[in-house]
Amino acid sequence: MDNDPLFANYGDIPLAELQSKSEVDFPYTEVGSLMEHLNDEVVLVRGRAQTIRGVGKKMAFVVVRERGFTVQAVVSEQAGLVSPQMVKYVASLNRESIIDVEGILTVPSDPIKGASQKSCPEPPHQPRHAARSEADIKKDQEYGDQLVRVNQDTRLNHRIIDIRTPANQGIFRIQSQVGNIFRQFLLSEGFAEIHMPKLIAGSSEGGSAVLELDYKGQPACLDQSPQLHKQMVTCGDFVRAFEIGPAFRAEDSYTHRHLCKFTSLDIEMEIKKHYSEARKGVLFFYVMDVVDRLFVERLKDAGVEIDPLGDLNTESERKLGQLVLEGIASENRYGTEFYILHRSPLAARPFYNTPCYDNPAYSSSFDVFIQGEEIISGAQHVHVPEFLIERVQSCGIDVNTISTYVDSFRYGAPPHGRFRVGLERVVMLFCGLDNIRKTLLYPRDLLRIAPSGADRNS
Amino acid sequence: MDNDPLFANYGDIPLAELQSKSEVDFPYTEVGSLMEHLNDEVVLVRGRAQTIRGVGKKMAFVVVRERGFTVQAVVSEQAGLVSPQMVKYVASLNRESIIDVEGILTVPSDPIKGASQKSCPEPPHQPRHAARSEADIKKDQEYGDQLVRVNQDTRLNHRIIDIRTPANQGIFRIQSQVGNIFRQFLLSEGFAEIHMPKLIAGSSEGGSAVLELDYKGQPACLDQSPQLHKQMVTCGDFVRAFEIGPAFRAEDSYTHRHLCKFTSLDIEMEIKKHYSEARKGVLFFYVMDVVDRLFVERLKDAGVEIDPLGDLNTESERKLGQLVLEGIASENRYGTEFYILHRSPLAARPFYNTPCYDNPAYSSSFDVFIQGEEIISGAQHVHVPEFLIERVQSCGIDVNTISTYVDSFRYGAPPHGRFRVGLERVVMLFCGLDNIRKTLLYPRDLLRIAPSGADRNS
Repeated sequence: MDNDPLFANYGDIPLAELQSKSEVDFPYTEVGSLMEHLNDEVVLVRGRAQTIRGVGKKMAFVVVRERGFTVQAVVSEQAGLVSPQMVKYVASLNRESIIDVEGILTVPSDPIKGASQKSCPEPPHQPRHAARSEADIKKDQEYGDQLVRVNQDTRLNHRIIDIRTPANQGIFRIQSQVGNIFRQFLLSEGFAEIHMPKLIAGSSEGGSAVLELDYKGQPACLDQSPQLHKQMVTCGDFVRAFEIGPAFRAEDSYTHRHLCKFTSLDIEMEIKKHYSEARKGVLFFYVMDVVDRLFVERLKDAGVEIDPLGDLNTESERKLGQLVLEGIASENRYGTEFYILHRSPLAARPFYNTPCYDNPAYSSSFDVFIQGEEIISGAQHVHVPEFLIERVQSCGIDVNTISTYVDSFRYGAPPHGRFRVGLERVVMLFCGLDNIRKTLLYPRDLLRIAPSGADRNS
Repeated sequence: MDNDPLFANYGDIPLAELQSKSEVDFPYTEVGSLMEHLNDEVVLVRGRAQTIRGVGKKMAFVVVRERGFTVQAVVSEQAGLVSPQMVKYVASLNRESIIDVEGILTVPSDPIKGASQKSCPEPPHQPRHAARSEADIKKDQEYGDQLVRVNQDTRLNHRIIDIRTPANQGIFRIQSQVGNIFRQFLLSEGFAEIHMPKLIAGSSEGGSAVLELDYKGQPACLDQSPQLHKQMVTCGDFVRAFEIGPAFRAEDSYTHRHLCKFTSLDIEMEIKKHYSEARKGVLFFYVMDVVDRLFVERLKDAGVEIDPLGDLNTESERKLGQLVLEGIASENRYGTEFYILHRSPLAARPFYNTPCYDNPAYSSSFDVFIQGEEIISGAQHVHVPEFLIERVQSCGIDVNTISTYVDSFRYGAPPHGRFRVGLERVVMLFCGLDNIRKTLLYPRDLLRIAPSGADRNS
């Protein structure tokens, strides 16, 4: 390229030019913003060289990708503008390189299809492979093609490659918006966003799912839930408060929906009379059917054994979802994938849950289901200290271990309640994903605490 | 009260009535919403009995407080409506009780002053005492009164009482809005909100300020900053991303502004040419003066010793703030409490910071100061893996300990940079508070890991 008079039109950008030497003079356009109104205009984009294809020595094609959007760039030999050396340079680019491309935009009459690829040093897996859906892979197999399938462990081990796929670019932008919609609704309803301590003193008397810390010589734990702190804040006159933050549980469950670290959307609020006031905090509740726990008795008729005073397991939750979805023909009701189950058995709820006023075997509580999976749970909480002590003791917990919490109700506490949503679980069900790990940039369970910035790669 | 024919007009609400028995029939009005348009209307409020005063046997006054707002309620004997027993009941209420009050609203021509108090069982401290400013206490002392001053440890130990004061009701609502304004601005600029893992594998090779975890038998740590993970996400095509979440540092500094757990507002973004693109992400930067690090040389003239290639300490930061505020008379510039210092010495920045293109002893970086305290720091980050390794090694770090991070730049990485803001620090300076602990509901430092829901009170 040394003897190419057109050398200034292409090439590697020297590092010094990218060390904040000068500010941007010609504006960049996002690939996703390349619309018809820019037809025939000169545009500058920065993106990744997703695929590169040379055609002879005079022409090369590059599919440029930015935030999941792609555009095809064509470079073709032309006197005084594009030299053969420039075409050669373009054709020899590494895939997934970040490149600047300046050119004239042409809106094609037909959409450009993906181009075939030439060989070059490969990342651990290719976004273009990971981007294929199971349906696409199956279809191609029927035509006799054997396409690369990238399995979940490979994806998670090389997460920074995997999240470049259009599906992942979508999932995490949806997640960002789910959190934001939840927050904006609550702020508009007079809630304050709060930040709970996460670090608590003492060792894990609360159970085996607690992660223990060395707090510079003192024993400490990571908080499993902001629940007790949130209730205390309610006693401190923040009668409508919420937190969106990490919760930590060393759960021994290796299911498609259990994690050691997840994002919890937690609200706590004063209620004047009834826990249905908290239920109204969930936007989509307005269009939901309410199913009484006693309805669950029907699971028996459907052949599913359940403990009438116990919690539902994954199987019975799914069966219940199916029953509700199919609807009750004789009664002409339900027939929905979104519903609320209320008045769960008290024995299946934590000590701070209030019993029903008319039947202490059941609780003032509600659980929201989508497609047979619980995504939200809510309840009224005990606000009278003497009654709270009774509940704590009947659940076999030593009152002394949580006496600061119990005492916080002694100086005047309003009736109050909460609901709680797992951000990742909502996104999983909303996007129809089969595993909650697909909703975390860096999922953590007891078998996976990598990748992270501090990993060795040996 | 048994023989009072008007017994239904007052009394303790039975617990069962507060167990979600019935929904609200008559709407409650918030104390803060009691405005002139409701004059002469019947209203129902729920709040705390902040002060109670009986006047003979026929009248009682109660100041009702809700979310820091107060209204005075008057109950006065009246045939067929208010019995002497009812007046007696009201006068014997406990302070800080939660009460429902129904009555006719009268807007007074002059504001009601605080009433004097009668004795009753006391919480550890009274919100009405904690609400007094230092200025008020001083003024009252000049008049010969000795008012109760509630000191900071008492406030923090009984945080749920303390946060009921109007000042604290304000501080945490401002904090909620600061986070929201930051978030809304970034979302409108195309940033996605992300959630980083917090849990990382390995022991604390990163330094003594790391909190170590027992991850069910594996050594692990709490992440001190989302920095490395955020950069990796940028390599995964989330070229504009931010997190607002907890960061954990076991800092040995016992200053007014150091904590073990704080809320970090962190952004990472692709930059096309210059780190000033990241700087534009901070709203109020538009009205700020930019001060070159070389200006700091003037600190010497002001008698403050500084290392020209080292970090500024608290004292020199404050002195610099004073110099900038006073302005440079001869040059007729500055004279502001808000300014940016850019191009800090590279030796005072972390390994991932890019050196200046024209002088490798300085860095492509900026720090934002309010009143002589740093609240935001930002920089361009190294995106070329070979150069990153050079930087890592020159900072004395073993590249192997962060090889996953370094490798994530090998498959195409855009030039990128960040800025970072401590939420609590912004609120402290914005509200003019003297200690960062006042901006946390449950502050945590190496001497304080209480109160929490799981504390014993022995």
